[in-house]
Amino acid sequence: MKLGGYKNKILRVNLTSRTFSEEELSYDLIHDYIGGRGFAIKLLYDELKPGIDPLGEENKLVFIAGPLAGTNAQSFGRWKVFFKSPLTGTYFKSSGGGHLAAELKFAGFDAVIIEGKSEKPVYLWINDGKYELRDATYLWGLDCDDTHTLIREELHDPNIRIACIGPAGENGVKFAGIFSDRRAAGRGGGGTVMGAKNLKAIAVRGRQKVDIADPEGFAAAVKEQIALYKGNPAAESFSETGTQIAEFTNLLGMFPTRNFREGVLPGWEKIESSEYTKLRVRKTACYSCMLHCGSITKVNFGRYKGTWSEGPEYETIWAFTGSINLPDIGLTVAADKLCDDLGLDTISTGSAIGFAYELYEKGIITKSDTGGLELVYGNQEPVLELIRQIAYREGFGAILADGTLEAARRIGKDAEKYAIQVKGLELPAYDPRGAKAHGLNLLTSNIGADHNTGYSSQEIFGVPVPKKIDRFAVEGKGEITKFNQDLTAFLETGILCGFPPSMGLINAEVYSKLISTLTGIKDFADPDYMWLVGERIYNLERMFNVREGFDKKADSFPERLKTEPLPAGPAAGQIFEEAALLEDYYKARGWDLNTGIPTPEKLKALGLEFAAKYSG
Amino acid sequence: MKLGGYKNKILRVNLTSRTFSEEELSYDLIHDYIGGRGFAIKLLYDELKPGIDPLGEENKLVFIAGPLAGTNAQSFGRWKVFFKSPLTGTYFKSSGGGHLAAELKFAGFDAVIIEGKSEKPVYLWINDGKYELRDATYLWGLDCDDTHTLIREELHDPNIRIACIGPAGENGVKFAGIFSDRRAAGRGGGGTVMGAKNLKAIAVRGRQKVDIADPEGFAAAVKEQIALYKGNPAAESFSETGTQIAEFTNLLGMFPTRNFREGVLPGWEKIESSEYTKLRVRKTACYSCMLHCGSITKVNFGRYKGTWSEGPEYETIWAFTGSINLPDIGLTVAADKLCDDLGLDTISTGSAIGFAYELYEKGIITKSDTGGLELVYGNQEPVLELIRQIAYREGFGAILADGTLEAARRIGKDAEKYAIQVKGLELPAYDPRGAKAHGLNLLTSNIGADHNTGYSSQEIFGVPVPKKIDRFAVEGKGEITKFNQDLTAFLETGILCGFPPSMGLINAEVYSKLISTLTGIKDFADPDYMWLVGERIYNLERMFNVREGFDKKADSFPERLKTEPLPAGPAAGQIFEEAALLEDYYKARGWDLNTGIPTPEKLKALGLEFAAKYSG
Repeated sequence: MKLGGYKNKILRVNLTSRTFSEEELSYDLIHDYIGGRGFAIKLLYDELKPGIDPLGEENKLVFIAGPLAGTNAQSFGRWKVFFKSPLTGTYFKSSGGGHLAAELKFAGFDAVIIEGKSEKPVYLWINDGKYELRDATYLWGLDCDDTHTLIREELHDPNIRIACIGPAGENGVKFAGIFSDRRAAGRGGGGTVMGAKNLKAIAVRGRQKVDIADPEGFAAAVKEQIALYKGNPAAESFSETGTQIAEFTNLLGMFPTRNFREGVLPGWEKIESSEYTKLRVRKTACYSCMLHCGSITKVNFGRYKGTWSEGPEYETIWAFTGSINLPDIGLTVAADKLCDDLGLDTISTGSAIGFAYELYEKGIITKSDTGGLELVYGNQEPVLELIRQIAYREGFGAILADGTLEAARRIGKDAEKYAIQVKGLELPAYDPRGAKAHGLNLLTSNIGADHNTGYSSQEIFGVPVPKKIDRFAVEGKGEITKFNQDLTAFLETGILCGFPPSMGLINAEVYSKLISTLTGIKDFADPDYMWLVGERIYNLERMFNVREGFDKKADSFPERLKTEPLPAGPAAGQIFEEAALLEDYYKARGWDLNTGIPTPEKLKALGLEFAAKYSG
Repeated sequence: MKLGGYKNKILRVNLTSRTFSEEELSYDLIHDYIGGRGFAIKLLYDELKPGIDPLGEENKLVFIAGPLAGTNAQSFGRWKVFFKSPLTGTYFKSSGGGHLAAELKFAGFDAVIIEGKSEKPVYLWINDGKYELRDATYLWGLDCDDTHTLIREELHDPNIRIACIGPAGENGVKFAGIFSDRRAAGRGGGGTVMGAKNLKAIAVRGRQKVDIADPEGFAAAVKEQIALYKGNPAAESFSETGTQIAEFTNLLGMFPTRNFREGVLPGWEKIESSEYTKLRVRKTACYSCMLHCGSITKVNFGRYKGTWSEGPEYETIWAFTGSINLPDIGLTVAADKLCDDLGLDTISTGSAIGFAYELYEKGIITKSDTGGLELVYGNQEPVLELIRQIAYREGFGAILADGTLEAARRIGKDAEKYAIQVKGLELPAYDPRGAKAHGLNLLTSNIGADHNTGYSSQEIFGVPVPKKIDRFAVEGKGEITKFNQDLTAFLETGILCGFPPSMGLINAEVYSKLISTLTGIKDFADPDYMWLVGERIYNLERMFNVREGFDKKADSFPERLKTEPLPAGPAAGQIFEEAALLEDYYKARGWDLNTGIPTPEKLKALGLEFAAKYSG
């Protein structure tokens, strides 16, 4: 039987030898890992030798579109890229929106694996089943927007979809992202790996269809999915205001301010969603997504008048306000645009800036270190210049460009205390002390402090579990975190966006209907099987990291979050009870409480016997 | 009989009343004026009341595509825009390349007439026979590139062609251009008129064909045209190096340097064509043009490393080198890009900067006027900042933004001596003292000092007249200038690009074959008729200006060019013999020698009796 959804083709490109191969998906891979994030971890676990240099020839980049990409199911337009991260040393997943994933399917491929390193800058051109490497010397140094423009002009097709890096990726900034039409797979240094491989971009165009195994069943499943979207108040509000939710987290007292010293930003009303709505030029959406949560925002007053960006998203808004203790909406747009142009992850960039401001305040660094920049809370003058310096590795930016943890180690003098990260990945815009399951996910996520690995919407928005949950409580948070992480893992086989589950717009039942009718694989019709695959993926990712030497010791927040209570606001007095929460989590996971490593029994139960040798 | 070539439809848009009308072309208009530039002068002459304010509601913008646009005839892809100029007060024609003209035809229109003034910023969207005004408030303030991007995204069609203005046009800079995919109708302030009308852009998309009256005859004519291109050494060299010919004019000693004080730029070898070829990223071309003279140039060294632009064309290269006496190739690219982004004519911008440098040297202005900028020859620091200030009318840029003549009048103190312009239009990159027919054209062109109104390729390149012409001689230059101007006038009915005639790639015979087989109009098959129409157009334009109060007094160069001999180089000792040359020209034209006004007899012979009342 012909399977629907998959193009059943992986394109493998070796940049060193400039050779290509097309590979079919094995049925076992499909059956056991479904797609997307599932495929990626199995491929990387099998193919990446432990201990390799993330910026060396041996690292690989796996670009994937999910089986549901390119169909009319909702919100499956995400593309993902997987690699060993130069920022964390862990397995990494990073994802972007827009139209790239659908286009990759239309071009005939489920995934592209990039290996080796090109001698000179190149870009990969995938044109409806055909492919070639093309010279990118002329594109080297260009920002992301110009790179899109000039590739489309070179190939005489403005409909081409592109994923590219900016100067930050070329210059080895450890948190350089990959950008497609101003939507970023921002976190973890995917752009850095591309840059190290001399791969400026991947350009994709196709005209093929995505086959559906059971068209009628699939249509019914999509209808059922859409019914969940319609009339859902959270979805309607999200469609209206987008991701710009600074009012939520400030009202929860967990909007990280002054490098996680406080949880409420004075004057946060200036950056609440309604202020962004006033500046909205128009809404934007990814392929086949009725949420259309994106915005183009243009500043119409003050020093940044005329500046615009796609976004800024909530995390970005925080990154350039909380970090410097100043809620200037114009600056958030200007900084967002600059990061998009230069190819930087806004979260790590803003966090690095917040870190530098605190070091400056503490006297650990001075004006002589910063080249005269006065990193004083409330002073926005240095922000855009610091962003530029980071991207080009100039001045103090050259130190921040390695991420806060590595920067702290180079700076010495207690600086590491102020690097607010887990496993090297800077924390996003949620103070773990204000929502314990949210914090527990940041602590244990397989890629470092990433909110999207298991977003605790139960604590933040009260969905999808209707009963009231005490966000400050410790008890039961291990189970909730596991739930969120495994749910995310199997939904990211699709590849679903992170927002619908956080609003209760999907569940295992609906997902299993979509994926089974699409593919025609019977086992996929069982929601329990989805949960099994989710847990399988999560544990295999964990084992990738275990093999790299990570264990319980790496599941650790900076001391501040564990010992300094939030000083004021709705979460005043809260600390993050790391030991107790972690034990609860390991128990829920069935992992060894002393090492944080999945037990051989757990691995066996998940069909991961092959990884058990690293388990003891 | 159905005529080929024409869509037979003019779209008239009144921005004040937000109303539209579609008008057919009259046969008389077609027969007597052929198209393009011919149509435009007749329309403007008939419709614009004398003495109107160029920036008022009564001015009109006529956008035109020629009958040959959108066909496979070569080099007819130019779009033209016509208006009363805010810089010169004369009739004005300005033209750009790319794909806009063909797209307008595909959308079903030969021309668009813009009238009135919109209350709020709008753009005009012409979609395959339909049209509407759309809100452009959100586009106001954006640069030209971003305007293209966001309109295409708003309308969900990346193939849309656009003509737009940048901040310079919005801010009333008198030499703001209109930009389409980085190709500019730069001169004379068309962008200023658009800005005054609150029209940010015109966006066009169509799917119609251009009909051909005699397909076989037309195919043969195109074949004949292409035969002239193939193997022509000038065309091959032009295809190879593009318009970047600084070596030509420096070797002729007529590369205006230090505000036309000298004719050779020291170190010009650094900006000769081969240096640009080294930086070329790729060649670009307009619709249906095998010359592909365009380039994308990217700087790969020095302070401007990574900067790129489409171009710079020869005039732009000169504008930012000769003016400041410094041949920095990187600066030419950076300044070109900035002018394209901000929407400025590079010639007038560079000329204004050169003018300011001389005033600074002469002590007419000082650091306190320039806000601290040191306008010292060889100092490039102020250039990009001055460009920005001009576009935003800030600092000293606010004065330069009115053009050199008006700026000089405001500055006083002898400044007018140093405003190198005719009728308010700044001179381009050819010193009139080095080629007298070339100068005579600049002196008498109907739009001020424009080289494209009657380019004397006989003197610069030795084509199309094979016999050796003495470029310094006075005698016979009136006849040559008339020849070049009338030739250009009828070729711009097509609308042909200015380059092919300057390389001998076309003549009246070939043009008449193309236009007659395309349209099916018998009279057009007579080359002599083409010459008649060319002269008719030229004289009617002149009468437009006469009606506005222009006469012989306006055909006058600044004293420097008439009394200061070029000090050194291959044209050393030359002045421009204005009186003698002008008399020769008026004689060749059959105009009144005392007034420079076409005589009633001449007008009658040209079928312009209706204009004779302004002739005496």
